[in-house]
Amino acid sequence: MRERLRYLTAGESHGPAISAIIEGMPANVFIELDAINHEMKRRQIGYGRGGRMKIESDTVKILSGIRFSKTLGSPISILIENADFENWTEKMKQFGEPNCKIEPITLPRPGHADYSGMIKYKTDDLRNILERASARETAAKVAVGAICKQFLKTYNIHIFSHTISIKDTYANLDGISYDDITIRAENNDLRCADESVLDTMRHEIDKAKDEGDTLGGITEIVATGLPVGLGSFMHSDRKIDGLIAYNLMSIPSVKGIEIGSGFSGVQKLGSEFHDEMYLSGRASNNAGGIEGGMTNGEPIVVRAAVKPIPTLKKPLNTVDISTMTETKAHSERSDVCVVPAAGVVLEAALAITLANTILADNEDSI
Amino acid sequence: MRERLRYLTAGESHGPAISAIIEGMPANVFIELDAINHEMKRRQIGYGRGGRMKIESDTVKILSGIRFSKTLGSPISILIENADFENWTEKMKQFGEPNCKIEPITLPRPGHADYSGMIKYKTDDLRNILERASARETAAKVAVGAICKQFLKTYNIHIFSHTISIKDTYANLDGISYDDITIRAENNDLRCADESVLDTMRHEIDKAKDEGDTLGGITEIVATGLPVGLGSFMHSDRKIDGLIAYNLMSIPSVKGIEIGSGFSGVQKLGSEFHDEMYLSGRASNNAGGIEGGMTNGEPIVVRAAVKPIPTLKKPLNTVDISTMTETKAHSERSDVCVVPAAGVVLEAALAITLANTILADNEDSI
Amino acid sequence: MRERLRYLTAGESHGPAISAIIEGMPANVFIELDAINHEMKRRQIGYGRGGRMKIESDTVKILSGIRFSKTLGSPISILIENADFENWTEKMKQFGEPNCKIEPITLPRPGHADYSGMIKYKTDDLRNILERASARETAAKVAVGAICKQFLKTYNIHIFSHTISIKDTYANLDGISYDDITIRAENNDLRCADESVLDTMRHEIDKAKDEGDTLGGITEIVATGLPVGLGSFMHSDRKIDGLIAYNLMSIPSVKGIEIGSGFSGVQKLGSEFHDEMYLSGRASNNAGGIEGGMTNGEPIVVRAAVKPIPTLKKPLNTVDISTMTETKAHSERSDVCVVPAAGVVLEAALAITLANTILADNEDSI
Amino acid sequence: MRERLRYLTAGESHGPAISAIIEGMPANVFIELDAINHEMKRRQIGYGRGGRMKIESDTVKILSGIRFSKTLGSPISILIENADFENWTEKMKQFGEPNCKIEPITLPRPGHADYSGMIKYKTDDLRNILERASARETAAKVAVGAICKQFLKTYNIHIFSHTISIKDTYANLDGISYDDITIRAENNDLRCADESVLDTMRHEIDKAKDEGDTLGGITEIVATGLPVGLGSFMHSDRKIDGLIAYNLMSIPSVKGIEIGSGFSGVQKLGSEFHDEMYLSGRASNNAGGIEGGMTNGEPIVVRAAVKPIPTLKKPLNTVDISTMTETKAHSERSDVCVVPAAGVVLEAALAITLANTILADNEDSI
Repeated sequence: MRERLRYLTAGESHGPAISAIIEGMPANVFIELDAINHEMKRRQIGYGRGGRMKIESDTVKILSGIRFSKTLGSPISILIENADFENWTEKMKQFGEPNCKIEPITLPRPGHADYSGMIKYKTDDLRNILERASARETAAKVAVGAICKQFLKTYNIHIFSHTISIKDTYANLDGISYDDITIRAENNDLRCADESVLDTMRHEIDKAKDEGDTLGGITEIVATGLPVGLGSFMHSDRKIDGLIAYNLMSIPSVKGIEIGSGFSGVQKLGSEFHDEMYLSGRASNNAGGIEGGMTNGEPIVVRAAVKPIPTLKKPLNTVDISTMTETKAHSERSDVCVVPAAGVVLEAALAITLANTILADNEDSI
Repeated sequence: MRERLRYLTAGESHGPAISAIIEGMPANVFIELDAINHEMKRRQIGYGRGGRMKIESDTVKILSGIRFSKTLGSPISILIENADFENWTEKMKQFGEPNCKIEPITLPRPGHADYSGMIKYKTDDLRNILERASARETAAKVAVGAICKQFLKTYNIHIFSHTISIKDTYANLDGISYDDITIRAENNDLRCADESVLDTMRHEIDKAKDEGDTLGGITEIVATGLPVGLGSFMHSDRKIDGLIAYNLMSIPSVKGIEIGSGFSGVQKLGSEFHDEMYLSGRASNNAGGIEGGMTNGEPIVVRAAVKPIPTLKKPLNTVDISTMTETKAHSERSDVCVVPAAGVVLEAALAITLANTILADNEDSI
Repeated sequence: MRERLRYLTAGESHGPAISAIIEGMPANVFIELDAINHEMKRRQIGYGRGGRMKIESDTVKILSGIRFSKTLGSPISILIENADFENWTEKMKQFGEPNCKIEPITLPRPGHADYSGMIKYKTDDLRNILERASARETAAKVAVGAICKQFLKTYNIHIFSHTISIKDTYANLDGISYDDITIRAENNDLRCADESVLDTMRHEIDKAKDEGDTLGGITEIVATGLPVGLGSFMHSDRKIDGLIAYNLMSIPSVKGIEIGSGFSGVQKLGSEFHDEMYLSGRASNNAGGIEGGMTNGEPIVVRAAVKPIPTLKKPLNTVDISTMTETKAHSERSDVCVVPAAGVVLEAALAITLANTILADNEDSI
Repeated sequence: MRERLRYLTAGESHGPAISAIIEGMPANVFIELDAINHEMKRRQIGYGRGGRMKIESDTVKILSGIRFSKTLGSPISILIENADFENWTEKMKQFGEPNCKIEPITLPRPGHADYSGMIKYKTDDLRNILERASARETAAKVAVGAICKQFLKTYNIHIFSHTISIKDTYANLDGISYDDITIRAENNDLRCADESVLDTMRHEIDKAKDEGDTLGGITEIVATGLPVGLGSFMHSDRKIDGLIAYNLMSIPSVKGIEIGSGFSGVQKLGSEFHDEMYLSGRASNNAGGIEGGMTNGEPIVVRAAVKPIPTLKKPLNTVDISTMTETKAHSERSDVCVVPAAGVVLEAALAITLANTILADNEDSI
């Protein structure tokens, strides 16, 4: 893998702050703080989110790398303070012994990092695992992605996402242009471009909420304005479809990634599947903008399967690690459905992938 | 990404040889040459393959890294000579001017690297692109994977694959154990464990062949015997689901990757989806063996959507790059369906991912 | 290169903060905040430092990765706020237009990043370069190194440094044990174990100061308690001598690195140079603890040539970039001699190298 | 580190072949096979080499990545067959049990990888270590470097080296231009530009040979024609001086690296050391072409301390690992002095570093 844009994120869910450092962003890229905070806000909305979203209202501080609204070429340091930390100073104290008895959490939630994490990291307090495994980390990713989006804008590349389905309710998008989809999806709290299914989706979410259950769905992420030839077939770890799958599958709750017509596309014959070329352009985009591990100039179209989140109010069966008895899982705070927000995080992951590939791919021929 | 096991592959489809070097394999791993060549052979069979598979009959030479059937810890150099090279010495001559007029290929095939490759690598002869973009590269990957499989065997980890669907014919695997699936899939040239659909599948392939068309399908890859805790949620680029998606989506023709119940699983409620824990084990494996970016001890289950290959005997519409006129695409040699062979390549990719993760993940806690 | 312990640093010299994130530190490592701040303090002392050292008095805040004095295995986020930032809010404003006229700096200092930086990063204000190129960055490195030192302590590995020479005054260390060197070097502001030369060294520094000039010297960095076999000859980019040279030569002002007897050692015959082995141990340590790219169990001994710093009160000839006329260089604040402090930074760089190698090198044989 | 040009080498000293794969070389670079073999030959000459150099006469086969003398942008696979392998098929057999009793080597040579290697790689036969730890690996490095040199030629960057000293005999190069040095150094088997010291050097080598001893020395490597701004201070692992030190210190026998005036330069005052700028250019090059971790347009000048090789005909004291008794070390074939050849290998390492940096450093500002 050619890594040109490096970044690290840090932060526990209830620690003092989430932070990130980006290294490798070129100098002289115009960056607006409002554009970053706008993405932070988009990540927090969505029908079906729990109470904490109101506490958070994340805002970003930039500690380095930008002067007079332009990147310096130096590492960009991002700080997102946790408004809620003051209530957690006992439980999340960094140095010294705990001031009071800290009750360890010992009830792993199926579907979460809890069980494997306790074994791998040799701890008997689940909090040592769930604090970092929390989706709170995606706040940092969205901030990093927001900076990459502004970099991509200088290349006229734009990224958006919209909800394809919630549980088994699917949007019908036949004949709607991408421009239209973007506008419509940004106008409702399900981030779905088919207004006719919004009521059903909300009803499903309400029902799950009443039952202490959770819901997943499918999100589509699209990038337009791409040059031809990002990525490469020359070595398999440089293929842009692989890189996209890597970065998007690494988002919490994502269990599937498909590009273009994906899993349903393979039911077609080769003559139906492949996007024939004419002087006027392509007849279709089943390839989702990627052929031979490279962009082909068409929009990149990716869909991600987002599983129902694994923290249920009505908790699942599990095994208490301290007593080795069967019981119900730990229940941390709970959202019911994060599909609309997941789209925003996935946009960020795609933005980071594309920014890195643009930067890494120069001079592939002389 | 923690890269502990590095490898590079090289080789043009009609060049003198395909080669690979693996660096980072520990010393003292028992390796059999037959086991490597067995995987090479598995890659070449499959109903629907074209004529070249008979020419190839790949065998591997090891040039370094192994002594008396044990790894030395040094780089392992792999050589797969192209039996067919003598017929290509004019067209693929490495040094000096061509001896005769070489007709450049100028008709990009939709679905292939051709069009984007010519632009990115600034060439007007498509052969400079298609030689490396060819799936011939996967011979090297299978050899690398075969060595990783033998490494994994020392951990009792086993990997296999089987065909889920060809075009719109799907196998029914209800109630069949993994052990059974492995045996059955290895016993037919479609690598499919449901014998009742083999005739339909073969018929589809024959029909496509007659029409000069191609077919795709879905393959499932499974790893068993895994320890708990491979991969990590501590930084998103260390999640094993992301790493698997990266390596499998980078295989030619793959357009989708799903883990566990994947895209269909998101139609379930959280209480139905998540794999409840009991003292006796898990009640289900919708997670496909991965929670929180780590293995949870259950089998890893991944499915890949393999598109119909893009070289059709009945070629697609394209644009001649030299004349900028509409015409039909170039037609290199042609398989009809590579789904059974793709499974073998995907096994190799999974083996490489797991071997790397095992090696990279030591001492995550002291 | 096997990168197991990743870190990024960020921060401009006069920006709001210096920060760093470390990823890959195992869980359950005992960390004391005082031990980190102790290293921060060691970096700031030293005869010949300028006024800013009094302003700085760096203290570290940990934003993540540690709970109840133990690492969680998650990224460790480090924040070092710049006490002085309030005086720089105009000049270093991050977003929006400058509030007042900012005079660009256009006089590159020979020996610094100024000239090449302005060209590479396409800026006409040298401040955009010198803020990040400043040795202020080493504050972050020392904090990262301080955490690595505590990790190494769990392996009984200890690192120290001492001044070998200031300009052309050399310490005489014949017959002094490492234990003794450590104690003596920590007891004076030149960090030199030969007390008999301290007066001469201080006199040289005073003289240079009076003349508006600067001084360099040589520092020795030593690591003891090492296991046999860190690093590897199996691939040249895994050799621990290369990795040490990489990390130490990347410290500002370092122009040479030698291991063991280094440049003078090559005047010996092979039979004199190589460290013969006996049942009782080695007869000498000309190899500086490294043979064949691996530690051999003897102390690692490295010396670094630290050039006189390039910001002189009596500035050097340069060319004004805005007018292309010959003139005198820009003069930012100035130290006279940083050799004692450089030793502390070099210790950090060695600690980071060793920590990474220990973590990256497990299971090199099964 | 930004890795844009990846390469792996492989091969045991007495195995069937040395090989390498380079990934990331751009398309359309003109490559001549003769130019590669010319470098292979330069590596093999030199007063003081042993008998094997006559056996070797290495020639390179290219298995991929080049067509009609131009790179394709695909991985370049390099094969150097060992003419001598037929005599080693018993001892270096790859698969199966040994055909006859293989006597393990158990006498580690001080100064070599032997002792640490046996422990790290858990073997009781030293051959498993010394085969890969042998300087034979540098044949692959020189081939890789020869390709990089041809890439650099398209940027008008040239690299050469010459011997500064053998043991304690130093060349006097006052007032000789680089052009002159290159010509003179290529004209004698010591690769030294001061003809007046050749006799003394040869005499030293002869004397050591008679006594079964070995000799080291110092080599200088120079690159000219460099653009301003390769490398970067923006993150310390991107500094070009660090990268050069990494790659050159990783060459067998190198124990020290200095840039520009290096260790002796630190005896100067800042006002003497730094290279003042005038409209007509720099007054000196004490910085060795690198300021702030970047090239400044002046020639890069690096010197390497090359230790006497550790295989002596008159072997050193060691400990027999099998019996744990004191004895004399194993004596594999032996050169007396490799300093002239080391220069050629160090040129290759510098060429690789610069090629990678040029490729990795594009678009550092927009």
